[in-house]
Amino acid sequence: MKTTDKQGCNILVALLAEHGVKRVVLSPGSRNAPLLMAFSRTPDIQDYVVVDERTAAFMALGMSQRSGEPVALVCTSGTALLNYAPAVAEAYYQHIPLIVISADRPMEWIDQDDSQTLRQYGALSHFVKRSYNLRAELSLPMDGWYFNRCINDALLTSLSGEKGPVHINIAVSEPLTQEMDMPSVRERFVTRIPSSSIPDEHSMKLLCDEFMSARKVLVLVAFSQPDEQLSQALLRLAELPQVVVLTESIANVRGKNLIPTIDRVYSVIDKAEWEDYAPDLLITLGGSLVSRMIKAFLRQHKPKLHWRISQGDHVIDTMQSLTCHIDSQAASFLEVLSRSVFPIESDYSMLWHRKEVIATRLHDDYIAHVEWCDLKAFSLILPAIPPGTALQLSNGTTVRYAQLFKCEQVLRSDCNRGVSGIDGSTSTAAGAACVGEGMTVLITGDMSFSYDVNGLSSTYLSPRFKIIVMCNGGGGIFRFIKPTSDLPELETCFEIHRDISVEKYADLFGLRYFELNDEKSAAEVLSLFFAEEDRPAILAVHTPNVYNAEVLRGYFRRSRQ
Amino acid sequence: MKTTDKQGCNILVALLAEHGVKRVVLSPGSRNAPLLMAFSRTPDIQDYVVVDERTAAFMALGMSQRSGEPVALVCTSGTALLNYAPAVAEAYYQHIPLIVISADRPMEWIDQDDSQTLRQYGALSHFVKRSYNLRAELSLPMDGWYFNRCINDALLTSLSGEKGPVHINIAVSEPLTQEMDMPSVRERFVTRIPSSSIPDEHSMKLLCDEFMSARKVLVLVAFSQPDEQLSQALLRLAELPQVVVLTESIANVRGKNLIPTIDRVYSVIDKAEWEDYAPDLLITLGGSLVSRMIKAFLRQHKPKLHWRISQGDHVIDTMQSLTCHIDSQAASFLEVLSRSVFPIESDYSMLWHRKEVIATRLHDDYIAHVEWCDLKAFSLILPAIPPGTALQLSNGTTVRYAQLFKCEQVLRSDCNRGVSGIDGSTSTAAGAACVGEGMTVLITGDMSFSYDVNGLSSTYLSPRFKIIVMCNGGGGIFRFIKPTSDLPELETCFEIHRDISVEKYADLFGLRYFELNDEKSAAEVLSLFFAEEDRPAILAVHTPNVYNAEVLRGYFRRSRQ
Repeated sequence: MKTTDKQGCNILVALLAEHGVKRVVLSPGSRNAPLLMAFSRTPDIQDYVVVDERTAAFMALGMSQRSGEPVALVCTSGTALLNYAPAVAEAYYQHIPLIVISADRPMEWIDQDDSQTLRQYGALSHFVKRSYNLRAELSLPMDGWYFNRCINDALLTSLSGEKGPVHINIAVSEPLTQEMDMPSVRERFVTRIPSSSIPDEHSMKLLCDEFMSARKVLVLVAFSQPDEQLSQALLRLAELPQVVVLTESIANVRGKNLIPTIDRVYSVIDKAEWEDYAPDLLITLGGSLVSRMIKAFLRQHKPKLHWRISQGDHVIDTMQSLTCHIDSQAASFLEVLSRSVFPIESDYSMLWHRKEVIATRLHDDYIAHVEWCDLKAFSLILPAIPPGTALQLSNGTTVRYAQLFKCEQVLRSDCNRGVSGIDGSTSTAAGAACVGEGMTVLITGDMSFSYDVNGLSSTYLSPRFKIIVMCNGGGGIFRFIKPTSDLPELETCFEIHRDISVEKYADLFGLRYFELNDEKSAAEVLSLFFAEEDRPAILAVHTPNVYNAEVLRGYFRRSRQ
Repeated sequence: MKTTDKQGCNILVALLAEHGVKRVVLSPGSRNAPLLMAFSRTPDIQDYVVVDERTAAFMALGMSQRSGEPVALVCTSGTALLNYAPAVAEAYYQHIPLIVISADRPMEWIDQDDSQTLRQYGALSHFVKRSYNLRAELSLPMDGWYFNRCINDALLTSLSGEKGPVHINIAVSEPLTQEMDMPSVRERFVTRIPSSSIPDEHSMKLLCDEFMSARKVLVLVAFSQPDEQLSQALLRLAELPQVVVLTESIANVRGKNLIPTIDRVYSVIDKAEWEDYAPDLLITLGGSLVSRMIKAFLRQHKPKLHWRISQGDHVIDTMQSLTCHIDSQAASFLEVLSRSVFPIESDYSMLWHRKEVIATRLHDDYIAHVEWCDLKAFSLILPAIPPGTALQLSNGTTVRYAQLFKCEQVLRSDCNRGVSGIDGSTSTAAGAACVGEGMTVLITGDMSFSYDVNGLSSTYLSPRFKIIVMCNGGGGIFRFIKPTSDLPELETCFEIHRDISVEKYADLFGLRYFELNDEKSAAEVLSLFFAEEDRPAILAVHTPNVYNAEVLRGYFRRSRQ
């Protein structure tokens, strides 16, 4: 069999496959023709061809997030690479291993007013773990070794410790599409044996002592990949009377004794009680938090001790109280910790769980009495999602609403909270739906939806992909949050009052359309919507924007009523 | 009147207005609320609110390109800024003064897993003339002076010499939307008096001598802003028997004796004659060239002397033959030169013009005899464009086709050839149409069109904006160009065979829809399409992709038939 004569491209593809890359999202171009040839002629890596590189990159992010495997991206020279930037930044802060590969013109042509040349090397350096600059042609004796070594380095860098994207820029000279025989020699493939991912025995002992010195331990879990070992360790900790485990809905851990509805519970704690709820020892893990309330609370009530468990060399001090960075893999560390600590006399857990009961009652009462609105709609939609579904949430209102509900039947929940953009929710969900078994449901706002409409234009929409668009006048968050809600510019600069015709989008992209406009028809519409199996489907949920904001503000005042 | 209490934002807006910024494209967010307040409360700067920052930035590019004035962009924190990157890179290489302003979280929160924080400062540094990092709050005595000085510097940097984008990153602390009285003191505004933009007398004399030593002088004009002085100077030079002026269709100069159809003429020059057509002195100006043929020809027949006229400190040696970089404003320099040189005995001009006559005849004959296809469609569409229209062309096939035709009735032609992306053609044209008088016509490919569909989703579609989509199966260029046309991957990885329903897009975005499928109905359809005055209109032109490539290949062989 023949392949491209650009030896570098063949080394690249062979090593990607060895390092576990099973999927590549390719965008058409001519400079990247040798890369397209090399990828499409390798049976080990599945190709997805997506024209818009912004969409392509978010789809790759969704694929990697969902599969837990690295995913490659390939684009041509020019601005193509720059369209990857939003998804690459998200991947960097979400610790997703994207292997970003850009074809480039040869270095000597950069800034020479030749077609489609710009400074590609390093263009994403703020948001990748490492950047590489290579030539696809191997001409000198060392070239093959250098290419091989860099690709091995890139893959190990991406996949080791705190995972993340890397950028490989490959200059390709003309002629672009000559062929040669498929190489018969197997590329040398370097593996890495990491050092232990938990502290040594002595440090562990000191940490256990510190833990046992605290009467109130709060474990706060932000977004994470599902991890059975982590869940088990957290459940063991949560059994201790001195420990409370708060988990965000996208933390993807759950079980008895964990509290997954942070804002719902927090909002019924009275100011006078705050001191009792503030921890002595705070343990944080996962990415950045959705809940602004808990952040504000902890910044105001700084714990004496704060451990952050994360692999990486940054001091991340979100609560302005960090005392110890535990550079460990969270599940392994907590597994050991949870087996080394024991119960002490404390009412800390009981206090929180009592509040949880009250919060739930007030939550149910409140929702039962409000008219049709976003909150009501979420209260009907979330329980109707079929078990085993992967739930994708968009920024920022959607994920905040979802966080008020328990939604234990779903397989996992994800949201692009690395840097919380609205730019790629649909594409990310579409990518996740491509690789996941079962149903994927995206709940998104109308502003996010229309932003990322190209997420629907690929040919890879799974029939098990379901989209729910909250049509509430766009940018509902600006009407809810204090700073912007009273501005005269609210309707001109913040909310984007466009009646987005979800139905026409559905027609354009071949999705089955459903609509939900009131409580009465919800059960029936939702059951039909989730039952659709032959085509991807989309549901437009229309709610009144002014009332939505009133209801949500009222929700957080409900304990005081 | 009240405005934001963030003094920096008020300084910014006041100075932008002083420096001639009349338009700002704003994208909603909460971190940029003080900027949105400051802009929307200034009567001197017109606001455009566009949600998708990629579209917003290309629209700003089109507005600046068309108006010749700087245009500001304002986004919120997070990935918003990264979505600007493709348009900013294009602006950098197209020398368009975009003032890119991003709201940021305060520096102390970067990389702290707080919401929507990433490394914004410097993120666009590869593609801007300069980056600034400021705080919106002025607290220390020097802060006001520093803010004022940086903004003056940013504007002067963007607008001096070779123009280009600058990036101003502004950290904003909470609370975000407090107000104060509109400042009554006028901000100090710095002007810059540039040094002479042409060489001194002695250098000018040496250059004239060099010019007069050449029996064959070729002036090659790539993309430029329309410039009457430049046109006049070129016309004077073109009267000399030893001078030929070749201009690309997006060079925006025209007149008797200039040759605007480079590829059409070049393709009828026989190999055996090449030596006669190769220049002794080559003079290049404008941006990067569309015509690959003329580039290849000149690289193969390197002139002894090659002057490049451009302001800027880069050695740009596109033809690998540069001998002199004239760091001057092209129009002023050529004005002086054209008045200082005189005719010598030479048949160089005559040779080229004779070929032009032959080329035109063969062109007309060839087109008369081909069936319905892209080339035929262009031959009917271009002459039908009403006089005074601004023509926008997408990359890359469209601009190449257009380059084969004279289209002298149009006001100007533009294409994003700075870095030749397909990512923002529609948005750029939509932006240009917003600010230009008269009609703006975009001709685009189906791949570019579906890529940049958000260009249609803003609320600023001018009723005088007309879009022509060449529906030829997507990525026609890959079927035409040698390298990719024979690959087995042609249809899976390069061409994107999607039947794009332009009609549904039209319906979705409220455009009047027209369709053109054959030669017979062309006159009538085009006349109705261009006559539509109440609504933006879109025309889908359907052509056969396999035949298109055959015809175009045949075109360049026509001289040999």
